[in-house]
This record gives sequence, structure tokens and C-alpha cells, in this order.
Amino acid sequence: MNPSSSASATPRVGILMGSDTDLKVMERTAAQLSQFGIPYEIDIISAHRSPQRTAEYARNARGRGLRVLIAGAGASAALAGALAAETTLPVIGVPLATSPLSGFDALLSTAMLPAGVPVATVAVGEAGATNAAVLAAQILALSDETLAARLLEYKLELERKVTEKSARLAASR
Amino acid sequence: MNPSSSASATPRVGILMGSDTDLKVMERTAAQLSQFGIPYEIDIISAHRSPQRTAEYARNARGRGLRVLIAGAGASAALAGALAAETTLPVIGVPLATSPLSGFDALLSTAMLPAGVPVATVAVGEAGATNAAVLAAQILALSDETLAARLLEYKLELERKVTEKSARLAASR
Amino acid sequence: MNPSSSASATPRVGILMGSDTDLKVMERTAAQLSQFGIPYEIDIISAHRSPQRTAEYARNARGRGLRVLIAGAGASAALAGALAAETTLPVIGVPLATSPLSGFDALLSTAMLPAGVPVATVAVGEAGATNAAVLAAQILALSDETLAARLLEYKLELERKVTEKSARLAASR
Amino acid sequence: MNPSSSASATPRVGILMGSDTDLKVMERTAAQLSQFGIPYEIDIISAHRSPQRTAEYARNARGRGLRVLIAGAGASAALAGALAAETTLPVIGVPLATSPLSGFDALLSTAMLPAGVPVATVAVGEAGATNAAVLAAQILALSDETLAARLLEYKLELERKVTEKSARLAASR
Amino acid sequence: MNPSSSASATPRVGILMGSDTDLKVMERTAAQLSQFGIPYEIDIISAHRSPQRTAEYARNARGRGLRVLIAGAGASAALAGALAAETTLPVIGVPLATSPLSGFDALLSTAMLPAGVPVATVAVGEAGATNAAVLAAQILALSDETLAARLLEYKLELERKVTEKSARLAASR
Amino acid sequence: MNPSSSASATPRVGILMGSDTDLKVMERTAAQLSQFGIPYEIDIISAHRSPQRTAEYARNARGRGLRVLIAGAGASAALAGALAAETTLPVIGVPLATSPLSGFDALLSTAMLPAGVPVATVAVGEAGATNAAVLAAQILALSDETLAARLLEYKLELERKVTEKSARLAASR
Amino acid sequence: MNPSSSASATPRVGILMGSDTDLKVMERTAAQLSQFGIPYEIDIISAHRSPQRTAEYARNARGRGLRVLIAGAGASAALAGALAAETTLPVIGVPLATSPLSGFDALLSTAMLPAGVPVATVAVGEAGATNAAVLAAQILALSDETLAARLLEYKLELERKVTEKSARLAASR
Amino acid sequence: MNPSSSASATPRVGILMGSDTDLKVMERTAAQLSQFGIPYEIDIISAHRSPQRTAEYARNARGRGLRVLIAGAGASAALAGALAAETTLPVIGVPLATSPLSGFDALLSTAMLPAGVPVATVAVGEAGATNAAVLAAQILALSDETLAARLLEYKLELERKVTEKSARLAASR
Repeated sequence: MNPSSSASATPRVGILMGSDTDLKVMERTAAQLSQFGIPYEIDIISAHRSPQRTAEYARNARGRGLRVLIAGAGASAALAGALAAETTLPVIGVPLATSPLSGFDALLSTAMLPAGVPVATVAVGEAGATNAAVLAAQILALSDETLAARLLEYKLELERKVTEKSARLAASR
Repeated sequence: MNPSSSASATPRVGILMGSDTDLKVMERTAAQLSQFGIPYEIDIISAHRSPQRTAEYARNARGRGLRVLIAGAGASAALAGALAAETTLPVIGVPLATSPLSGFDALLSTAMLPAGVPVATVAVGEAGATNAAVLAAQILALSDETLAARLLEYKLELERKVTEKSARLAASR
Repeated sequence: MNPSSSASATPRVGILMGSDTDLKVMERTAAQLSQFGIPYEIDIISAHRSPQRTAEYARNARGRGLRVLIAGAGASAALAGALAAETTLPVIGVPLATSPLSGFDALLSTAMLPAGVPVATVAVGEAGATNAAVLAAQILALSDETLAARLLEYKLELERKVTEKSARLAASR
Repeated sequence: MNPSSSASATPRVGILMGSDTDLKVMERTAAQLSQFGIPYEIDIISAHRSPQRTAEYARNARGRGLRVLIAGAGASAALAGALAAETTLPVIGVPLATSPLSGFDALLSTAMLPAGVPVATVAVGEAGATNAAVLAAQILALSDETLAARLLEYKLELERKVTEKSARLAASR
Repeated sequence: MNPSSSASATPRVGILMGSDTDLKVMERTAAQLSQFGIPYEIDIISAHRSPQRTAEYARNARGRGLRVLIAGAGASAALAGALAAETTLPVIGVPLATSPLSGFDALLSTAMLPAGVPVATVAVGEAGATNAAVLAAQILALSDETLAARLLEYKLELERKVTEKSARLAASR
Repeated sequence: MNPSSSASATPRVGILMGSDTDLKVMERTAAQLSQFGIPYEIDIISAHRSPQRTAEYARNARGRGLRVLIAGAGASAALAGALAAETTLPVIGVPLATSPLSGFDALLSTAMLPAGVPVATVAVGEAGATNAAVLAAQILALSDETLAARLLEYKLELERKVTEKSARLAASR
Repeated sequence: MNPSSSASATPRVGILMGSDTDLKVMERTAAQLSQFGIPYEIDIISAHRSPQRTAEYARNARGRGLRVLIAGAGASAALAGALAAETTLPVIGVPLATSPLSGFDALLSTAMLPAGVPVATVAVGEAGATNAAVLAAQILALSDETLAARLLEYKLELERKVTEKSARLAASR
Repeated sequence: MNPSSSASATPRVGILMGSDTDLKVMERTAAQLSQFGIPYEIDIISAHRSPQRTAEYARNARGRGLRVLIAGAGASAALAGALAAETTLPVIGVPLATSPLSGFDALLSTAMLPAGVPVATVAVGEAGATNAAVLAAQILALSDETLAARLLEYKLELERKVTEKSARLAASR
């Protein structure tokens, strides 16, 4: 069975977030991974409130079959970096605009990691939540031809939707 | 022969930048990839000054055996996004602090891509240039056990260096 | 027939945007061009999701009779720059406040283009959408006396409206 | 005689700046216009220190044969807007990083004009100074075939330089 | 008759704003001046849309008996600076948060004036609108003992209100 | 004897700063006041390190004959506000770029005072230091015809200098 | 009687804020202190509107048995620094997002104190209001074993809540 | 023996930093603690490069007799938060301006911690490094009368230095 084709298969991607209030945005990541047929798991852990579970999660991730970790966090968004500190798997960070500072804090905290411990940072908020899934798919597709084909189809679909919107706009005027 | 063990092997990573003035920082990416034994190529192309060559580079990248693209750019840093628009390979963006705006412009331009077209953004400047290589290695290591082992060793080495600095500091006081 | 006096004439200005969600703001550009009697076309294309169509649009623009391109985009607003990369027509960029970062991202992405490839950046949001049309009219008016006269009238009208508001305020107190 | 081919011809572009300390950066605008063969004049006027001369300059500009105004200013960069308030000619603003706030002040002041009075804002600093000239050339080229041809050549040259840098980089490794 | 005690007296303060949409905030300035018994006038003029009337207003202000000008403006808030360019009366600038950039643009545009032409900048928005009136009163009170006494009473009242709130809070718990 | 004509006269303006490291910039304020013939005093007091002396200074200022206070401070620039809390004299704040945050901190701290306690904020750094003196002169000139005449002369001189620079630029080309 | 177990005991923490409009956020501080059983008092004083009462409050705080002061303030948030200027007790500052500048002003004003007069700054807004109480508890717990034990329990509870959310999320899918 | 009077006593404060390049600034913390006679230890550990040692350090800190932790870090400054996640001791964070983003990144990352896990953030850079020591002394002085007295003396000394600078300035003019 193709690991990227069944939701009951071993998860390849772990979606983490620090609070259930982040779930509404991070559901986009889950939905996009599902659309690609990538098995994932989703969980709530916190770099600051459950640091040991966070460290253990990251240390065990590779052994449990996970290939990419995605962390959504706002404010002083440390989750992605805390995971990256404990694994050599690629870690994708989604900065969330949950504090009064509009996501500038989360973007800087997520992206400005020190040399040696990268986090693959995507856009603040909803666009980033979707793109974390697309980036994870691009990474996994390097060794998964089926997924690579789906990504090509997805990319064509993105373009098709633009064309359709263009056509609808033309028709409406 | 292991593709990640020889510099003369087919490049797995393409390092791109918009100008030779970016070379000084982006050499860190090359040096780090070399240290991991990852074959790479390095080139100067510009999203704004050689857009067609940029698009072609991205479209041909997968077929030529490249697996990850890394783009360093400053100011309105469009290069990573322009590559990501034309390939489903993972694209890593290194924002450079080349304008008077200290890299805020490059960070926002690189990270805030629209849904569907991710760029894996790393830190502004030198830390990011190194981390682009580490992130590329993490991605390639998902299907390369030798590289995965090197990454583990690299991670231990990072920690060892901190311990050594700690010891030197203790000895000096 | 005067090209700037009929909506069915060959479009002189192309209004582009990356998404139909940008339409509400960019309608202001269209409305203002209409008021000046400048024939325009309006379309949805995306630097990141339909890059080839974007490049082709820009390359063909001059030949199709277009004289000015206007691109509205938010977040990592690459559309104006992508068009400017492929044409020597003047390109006007309207940064849109569509991400959580309030338009700072779009403003920096649109304005900070590298030497050689300018984008004429106007204000973020609605004021910019109107001003893109006025700037396009100013450019076209350099070789269109009728339009130049309309612009003078428009400028007087701007001043008259301020005077009327002043009078209404005086009357109300 | 072709107006864009002789430096002694009637100036088509006015380059303005608020202080002689801005001259070092704004010389790039002049040099680029010269390279295009566009006759220009260059002067120091200040929105805040010589407001009436600024207003008169703008009001007389069209009548004196000027077609595009370019204003370089730092801090609360009002010069471009002050000119735009008094003319319907296109006005290009170059924000300069002359205050401790690194050009953020000049960029926001130059770009965020109210509806009705656009300033075509280019990048902060040296890239913007060059691009102001290129944008002016693009605008003038709409009715000047010789200049349009030069712009095409310039654009090819930009691309050639990238290619040369690419080749030199390849040769050096 | 005391000039600061009657609303029908010659205006000592001119309150200016660029648009009637700014009126809601700037009414606070008027209300506070009224409370101090300072005769004022209020008008709508625009640095960018009615520049000559703006310049004339500033040039005639002293002769008409005005002693302080207050200008409320948002975005590229040029009004206060434009007035200051044409008068040696003190000019107070109230930055307004009317653009998507939350008032950062107006604050920088209002405050960062070049050497020689100051604008007395107060806080963004409602607090600033009130404070413009208080600052004007402080300036006028230097030669008006009645007003100086009212300012002392106002300052005591500010403190009394804090004490009352303190007492109410204590009583409520 | 005219109080604004002699340096040995009773000081009309108090220049305050929190540290002797601010002296280099704030000397511009002193020099400009001297040029206007306005007697001033200059002192070092700190809102955070000598708060009682700061409060007393402000409370005694009016009685000692001072008419305007000018405070230069960097970082969390509280000095101007602390003075304004204890006097009804006009207080002018000069934000200084002394911290790593380039003066953004000082500008926001100085300008964003609460309703009831204004600080007249001028530009960050050297331009602001000069302008604090000019603004103080404008305020004092409301009841000092000699000073008012000097300000008119100063304003003409500002314009003359621009004209001279314009002439020198013309001559040099 | 244990001083940290009774609300009627001598207050150990003083919660201060500049206005009753800050009460809604600062109630979180009070609630969290209550949960820890730390006796506190809460009051409204203003660095700018009741400066002498603010100074006296800080000078008397230690003698009245207070051990930690917490100040919530927005905009040019001077309250925490004004207290710190007059006491050697630890002062915690909570920046509030009450102005149009989204709390950036309050954060910079609260944190950037000069050497010698620290303010312990916590996060902007609600998270900071809670954390001010937790930090105060951490400080007081250094000499209060009962409180130290409660903090350990609180920390475990934080982790338990994350685990519960994790479980609920798992159950819901 | 008084624990705060001997450098060879059990350390009460742990100064941590992520890199030896941070040592130059953080030496100020050490020097200030020494001046207060507070025994401290200083070490290099990294939230991202030696996360387990960081966690262990924090978990063991209380048991080893430490009472306050001080962490200096730049960029995505996670060290203070990582320590705070694992201890209930007060943790003070010193944001350092080590990246191209001038310390804005470190300030936001250090201050914006989630509810439940505070970091006492002080100013960016040198002022903050000194203030971290002063704040630690204020905390320890709550149960150490000797230290409390030293702090009062230090505060008087701060004021004396201002007075001396004031006197020197007066003498020099």
C-alpha cells in the first residue's frame, strides 16, 4: 500500500500547535495534506508549557516514521525552533497572528533561528497554514512519484483556478 | 557511487542569487553543502533582470536531477518565489539585508507567499545562508541514510562546540 | 475616434490582480479610468500561480496596444515586479493590505525593486487603487491633449470638493 | 533634432532634491537619464524651506517643456507630493535613507499619498535613484520610438550583465 | 473683552484637516479649545488637493490674528508641514490612523520634518487630537494669565479624575 | 533690556537631557537658541535616575521665569513626559537614536502621550534638536516682536540657502 | 497566618494602571494573584496625570509591606518606569495595546529603560497581564515555600491542560 | 557568611548566553552583579544547539541554590523562554541586537511569551545587560537586607552621577 494514499497509514507528517485556539487556522494544513493523500497526525504540545513532551516528540519523530514536522505558533513562536533543536527532520514553522502585534512577533521568532538549526518558515496565518502542507508534500515527493504527480496536478489546478476566475471576471463585465 | 559523497556528482542542490554582490553571504551555503558532501551548483540569475532564464532554470531543475533550490535575494526578494512558481521542488529562500531597510523588506517578500506556492524561508543574512544548506540536507537526508548520519553528527558537533565554548569560558575566569 | 474617449476602443491600460478577492479594491482603478474615458482591460493573473501567463501578458502588452500596466497585489506582492521584468512599459503597483501584516509586506515587496526594473508604487489600499488610475492618466496624457485637459479638470474638481466640504463645515456650525 | 538625443535640448525631466547632501545618490538618476540620452535639468528646491519656488516649479513645469518630475527626499519626504499637488505631470518619488529611521519614514511619506494626487514611488536609496530614471524613460518612450528602442536595448543589457556574472562565477570555480 | 473667553472673538487657533472624514477625531480638538474658552476656527484644506489655499491660509494666519495652527492628517500626513513651510507661527500636527498602516505612516510623516521647519507632533489619533488643544492652550497661556489659570485648574482636574477613578475602583471591590 | 537679546538674561528656555552622551546632539538646540538671542539654561536630569529633581525642575520652571522646556532623550524617552506631567509650560521632546532600535523607541515614547499631557515632539536626532529651538522661538515670538522678526529673517535665510545651493549646483555643471 | 493565603492580609503586590479602561485586561493579573493566594491591592494612578501620587506610592511601597509592583499601561507607557525610578522593589510592566499603534509603542516604552532602572517587561496585552502575576509569584516564592509549591502545581497544571487539549483533539477526530 | 557578600559563595544567579560572541555585552551583567556582591555563575548554553543541557540546567537550578536566571540572546531569542519553561525561578531575558534586524527580533521573541510562562524582559543590548543584574538584585534583596541596602546606595549613586554630570556641564560653560 502506498504510504501517501491512505489516512490510516503511518503518519508521515506531524502537525503541532501550542493551543486549541490555533486549531482553526491549522486545520488548513490538515485539509491540504488530506487532499494530497499524505497521512498525518495532529497534536497540541507547547514549547513553553509542555517542553519535555515537545522535546520527546521531536526526538521520537523519526523513529515513529514521521518525515516532516509542521508547527503553528503565535507571539514568541518557539515551537518550531524547539522541535528543530531536537531532530534532524525538516521542521516547517507557521507564524500565527494571535497577539496584538499582528504576527510580526511570530514571523521574526519563527524565521530568525541561529546557524545550525533551521526552521522552514512560511507565511503568517492562513496562507502559511496551507503552504506548510504544500511544502511538506514537495519534500516528501522527492522520494514518492505518486505524490510528485499529485503536486504537478495541484500546481496545474492552481493555474486553472486563476484562469477560471479570469474567465468569470470577463463574463461578468 | 553515493550522490551525496562527491562534488563532481550530479548537483542535487541549486544555489541561486540575483547578483554577485550576494556571493559573499551565499558562499556560506555552498561551504556548508560541501561539508555535508552534497553536490551543488551555484549560479547568478535574477527574477527581475533575467526572468525567462529564471523560469527555465526552475522548470528544468527537476529533470536535471536537482532536488532542492536555494535562492538568496535582498530588498523585494522575488527570486525564491519566482522559482517556486515554476517548480514543485522545495525552494528555500534566504532574505539578504542589502537595502537600507535592513532586511525587513527581504524577509517579508520572501516569506509572505500566497497559498499554493510555498517558499521555505530561513533567517536574514549569514545565519540563514548556513541554515539553507542545513535545511536542504535535512530534506535530502529523508532518502539518503549516509547524509542522515552526517546530519546527526553535525547536530552533535553543534552541541559539542557549545560545550567547548562553555569550558573555555569556565577556564578563563 | 479618440482612443481615450470610448470604452470599446483598444485598451490602453491593463489592470491585473492576483485574485478575485482583490477585485473590490481594484474596481476603484477601473472606475477612475472610466471616468477619464481611458479604455482599459481588467484581468486576474498571478505571478506565483500562473507565472507563464503573467510573463506572456507582459511581453505581449505593448504589441496589443497597451501603454500602462497596473497590478494590485497583497502580501509578497510580486505581480507588478513580474510584469516589469518582461516589459518596458510603465508598470504601476498597488500594494494591498490582504495579509495579517496590514500591507507593510505588500508595500515593501512592491516598492523595493532592484536597479533596472522599476515599479511605480502608489499607496496601500483604496487610495492607491484610485491613484494608479490617475497616474496612468498622467502618463497617457503626455501624448493626449484631450486627456490632459480632463486631468486639469479632475484636479480642479479635487480642489472644488475640498472647498465644498469646507463650506458645508462652515454652514453646519 | 530628436529631443531625447541631446543634452543641450530642452529638458524633458526635472530632477529635484531638497538638499545638496542628497546629490550623491541623485546623481545616479542624472547619469541614467544621460545614458538614455534624455535631456534633463537638476535643481535643489525644498517643500519645506522654499515652498513657493517648489509650487512655482511644478506649476511651470509643463509649460517649460518638462514631461516628468523626479524628486528625491528623505525623512518626512514631502517634496514629491508637493510637486504632485501642483501639476498633472507624472511625479516620481525617490525615498532617501537620510534620517536615523533608515528610510522607513521617507518610504511611507512618499508612497502614502491621498486619492487624487499620486506619486510614483520607487525603492529607497540608490536602486530607487536609478529606477526613477528608468521609469521616466519608460514613460517618455510611449511617444518616442528611439527611446523605446534604447529601453529594449537597456533591458537586454541588464540580462546580459547577469549572464556575464553567471559566466564569471562559473569560470572562477 | 478677554480674547480667550468668547467663541465669537477673533480666532486664536486654526484647526485644519484634509478631509471631512477626519472631523470626527478633530472635533475633540475643538471641544477642548472651547472648554478652555479659546476662540478657534475650523476648516478643511488639503496640502495635496488645495495646496494654494493651504499656503495662503498659512501666510495670512498671523495677520488674521491666529496664533497657533493645528493640522490633523493621516497617511502621508503633509498638511502640518505644508503650513509650517509658510508661517512662523507654531504648528501642531495630529497624526491620524486613517490608512491600513495604522498611523505609523502619519506619525513618521508628521514628526520627521527637516531642520528649520518644525511641527509640534502629538500622539496618533484621539489622544493627540485632545492634546493638540492642550498644547495650543499652553502656548497661548504664556501671555494670557486667565488661560494659564484655567490650565492649572485643568491639570488639577486631570488628577482629580484619576483620584475619583481610584476611589470608585476601591469602592467596587 | 529685551529678554531675548542677552545670554546673561533670565533663561526663557530650559534644555534638559538625561545623560552627557546626549550633549553632542543637544548642543544644536543650544546653538540655535543662541543664534535667536534667546537666553537658555542647559542641564542634565533624568526621569528615571533623578526623578525628584526632574519633578522639582518642572514645578519650579514657570516661577523661575522659564517659558518653554526642551527635553532630549533616547530609548524609553520619558523625560519630556515627566516634565509635562509637572508643569503647564509647553514641553518639547527630541527623540534621540541612542539605543539599537534606531530611535523608533524614542519617537513612540515621546509622542504617544495620553490625553491631557501633551509633548510637542520633533524629529529624531539632529534635525529635531535644531527644530526644538526653532519651535521654542516660534512659541516665544508670539509675545516678542523682536524675536518674531528674527524668525522671519531665519525663514528667509533657510530659503536663501536653498537658492544658493541651487545656484552652486547649476554653476558646477 | 500565612501572608500569601488570605486576601485580607497585608498586600504583597500592588497592581497599578493609568486608567479604568485598562481594568478589563489587568483584572487577569488580579485573578491570577488570587488564585495563588497572594494578597494584593489594585489602584489607578497615572505617571502623567497624577505624578506625585505615583512617586509617593512607589516611595512608600516597601514600607507598607509591598514586595512587587505591577504596572499596566498603553501608548507611551511610562507608569512602570516612573515607579521603578522611585523604588528598589522589582517593578513589572505590562504593555497594553490601547493606541492605534497596536502595542508596539507600549512595548518599546516599557522595555527600553536606561541602565540602572530596570522594568521587568512581559508580553503585550492579556498574556502579559497573566504573566505579571506569575512572575510576581515566582519572585515572592523565593522566600515562601508554600507559594513555591503552588507554583510547581500551577506549572504542572499548565502542562496537564495541554495534555487534556491534546486528548480532546485526538478524541474529536 | 552572607551569601551575597562573597564571590566564592554558592552562586545565586546564573548568567546564560547562547554564544561566546554574546559575552562582550553580557559581561556587564556579571560586572554589575559583582559590584552588588552577588555570587553568580556564567555559562554558554543554547536553546537550539544544546537544548537538553538547557532544560537540565533550568530543572536543576533551584536545587543547586540558584535563585534567578538571566539569559542573553539575539535573533529568535529563545533561551530565556526555554529556561522559563523548565523552572519556576524568575527568568530575566536580555534581547541582543546580533542579527541584521537590529534587536527588534530579539525583543519580540523574548517578551511575547504565552500566559503561564513569563520572562522578565529588559532593554535590548548594553542597558538591558546592566539592568538584568539590577533586577536580579532587586529580587534577591526582598529577603536580603544587606543587598537591599546596597541597592538603595546604588540608586543614590545613580542620582549622584546625574548631579555630577550636571555640575560638570555647568562648570564647562
